[in-house]
Amino acid sequence: MQALPGFRDFLPEDCARRNYVFARWREVARRYGLVEWEGPPLEATELYKKKSGVEIVEQLFNFTDKGEREVALRPELTPTLARVVAAHEREFKKPLKWFSIGQFFRYEKQQRGRLREHFQLNCDIIGEKDLAADIELVALCVDILRAFGFTEKDFVVRISDREFWTDFFRDRKVPAERWDDLLQAIDKSAREPREKTAEKLGDLADPVFATLKSGGKSAKLEQLAEGLRTRGLADFVAIDVGIVRGLAYYTGIVFEAFDRAGKFRAIAGGGRYDNLVSQLSDGTLSMPALGFAMGDVVLGELINEIPRPREAMQKSIANDSKIDVYVVIAKEQRRPDALAQIQQLRDRGYRIDYPLTPTKVARQFQTAEDLGARVVLLYGDEWPQVKIKNMESGEQELISRDDLLTSVESIVR
Amino acid sequence: MQALPGFRDFLPEDCARRNYVFARWREVARRYGLVEWEGPPLEATELYKKKSGVEIVEQLFNFTDKGEREVALRPELTPTLARVVAAHEREFKKPLKWFSIGQFFRYEKQQRGRLREHFQLNCDIIGEKDLAADIELVALCVDILRAFGFTEKDFVVRISDREFWTDFFRDRKVPAERWDDLLQAIDKSAREPREKTAEKLGDLADPVFATLKSGGKSAKLEQLAEGLRTRGLADFVAIDVGIVRGLAYYTGIVFEAFDRAGKFRAIAGGGRYDNLVSQLSDGTLSMPALGFAMGDVVLGELINEIPRPREAMQKSIANDSKIDVYVVIAKEQRRPDALAQIQQLRDRGYRIDYPLTPTKVARQFQTAEDLGARVVLLYGDEWPQVKIKNMESGEQELISRDDLLTSVESIVR
Repeated sequence: MQALPGFRDFLPEDCARRNYVFARWREVARRYGLVEWEGPPLEATELYKKKSGVEIVEQLFNFTDKGEREVALRPELTPTLARVVAAHEREFKKPLKWFSIGQFFRYEKQQRGRLREHFQLNCDIIGEKDLAADIELVALCVDILRAFGFTEKDFVVRISDREFWTDFFRDRKVPAERWDDLLQAIDKSAREPREKTAEKLGDLADPVFATLKSGGKSAKLEQLAEGLRTRGLADFVAIDVGIVRGLAYYTGIVFEAFDRAGKFRAIAGGGRYDNLVSQLSDGTLSMPALGFAMGDVVLGELINEIPRPREAMQKSIANDSKIDVYVVIAKEQRRPDALAQIQQLRDRGYRIDYPLTPTKVARQFQTAEDLGARVVLLYGDEWPQVKIKNMESGEQELISRDDLLTSVESIVR
Repeated sequence: MQALPGFRDFLPEDCARRNYVFARWREVARRYGLVEWEGPPLEATELYKKKSGVEIVEQLFNFTDKGEREVALRPELTPTLARVVAAHEREFKKPLKWFSIGQFFRYEKQQRGRLREHFQLNCDIIGEKDLAADIELVALCVDILRAFGFTEKDFVVRISDREFWTDFFRDRKVPAERWDDLLQAIDKSAREPREKTAEKLGDLADPVFATLKSGGKSAKLEQLAEGLRTRGLADFVAIDVGIVRGLAYYTGIVFEAFDRAGKFRAIAGGGRYDNLVSQLSDGTLSMPALGFAMGDVVLGELINEIPRPREAMQKSIANDSKIDVYVVIAKEQRRPDALAQIQQLRDRGYRIDYPLTPTKVARQFQTAEDLGARVVLLYGDEWPQVKIKNMESGEQELISRDDLLTSVESIVR
């Protein structure tokens, strides 16, 4: 038996890498004053059908539950956030600055290496319409990637504005009901043959291609870039109106982070969705909002690709996986004495391991090394003295059992 | 719109409590040298139908996916663990000592307050048949609860042994095919009317009731208790052969942790499942194994019930939620200068907040207090000097912008 297609088992090493990513995500989000929340992994299918757009809905991992409810394993967090905010916003000061780390799902035709689940960080600011919130959020996205050791040579956040295009359409008297399809066509233009995009754009093909080529500009995008320049982050961002984002609910600034080499799909993406809370609360509550998501899969590939982030991860994981103390039981008669002291050390928070059953001393020392123990304590003929060995310096001495805690502390803390 | 019945939204306060529990779980499991892993939330239904027993299967949150696979949101972790170990055991030294924290699901008739999801810690030792592993695991269970601030007055781990009962049946020449039903009857005996249990037990009713009343004993259980006494944990455990556990795959020592007041369901439970790896690998691999699980729901109720653990949690959460620095922007002209320094401080790992838009100074100070800021930096007429206020002592002084990092560090670190 094996895992279902598209689902991962996280063996200890995989789990350590996952936790490393989670820890960086959490740490930097909190530097920005964001607080953590979480929604359920299963939601009513309707929550996504309403607003997420055709790509999400086509790949929904949905089913009918035993109570005849139409439900879906969540493909994304934003609709849950809008639902929760609509229900609870009165309990919080505005703006809300929230982040969340969780697992998300999709069901699509099985392809090699395409997963049906991944983990995602979501960061959102709710209740602030000012561009200052957009700047803060893009800066957070940049700083999260920097925290992994990526530099401006490794990635760029491409910033854009859906209003640039809706203004563009309005100027050309394009009926509003065509806008969504046109935005989708522009979103796909970099990944599709020019002819296909041209067909979708119709009479707008020439001016759109010309704009994409020359590079669009707007006062708002300039102001966004200036805000990032003030923070010293100018080298990490670029205005690119070719970015539109696939999700249907975006209304203003949108952005995506890419590796500079162009080898991978987007590392992160997000934008403003000022109407979603209103739409999900049937218009009873209006709240500007914006956010972005960063997945663990592309990020993980990029960390493995670039030496500095990869080595930072390896070093962090190696350090974090070490135990503090390995207890060598050289004489089985001393096992109860050793166990009593193991308990005392664990009570003080130390990470301790020892052989559960009688084992040759040399093999115990080998295990101590394999586990990265900083201290070895040996219980044998010397009792009631204990041999203590500093595994880094190699120094060892005999100590009284009563001095054990102090001696261990002097090496480990 | 709201969450599906039985599913929780974790608003920031709920999420902080959840993370507090996760952090204690993780910390103590690692003191015991356990390493973290994780499985997928969705598995083939067959994985549970095979071995988990009738209660799990009746409440499976299962469905048919779009690829016509019979799948289930996982009700428990042990079958996944046995599946993963069967596939990967050669990659690891024995015994494996693994823990995992994840979400689990069941679908049962809707009742008030009965959830359809919960989080669970799972701790397992694979590949060690010696009773030393059972002792280690029970000690871990005790120490996790102690880490929340519970004492021997608050909880007890009741230890038992299925072999006590299978020996009992064998002595009385009970056919092996009846054993499972009899174990289920004994498991439910404390929660069901005596008559109902008697009916299920048939001719064994009298000797079973007599044994439950007088208290069963065995050399193995005595040895287990002695191992815990050696560690100073005797007051936290009690032999109670009435504990059998509902899951079908247990083979030896089983145990459950309860609140002493008897107000709640079991806080944790587990035991030996020496045959499961073999059964899930179709007999190609035999591996003794044991583990326990602790859920977040009963534990959370018990933390709220008892003052010491509750206060420890509140204190930890309050400390952890504090920001380091709040930046007051007293003059809007200073906003760019403030933002440049905010970026520098965040780059050094500090948690910083500031008003995204122009705000009255008094209100900014109020927000600083609400967020638990340890330092307030004020950017105003004094620029290029910055006013720094130690929020605990109330002291404030003017510092040069160049001394900012040092001054903040002297207060926060």
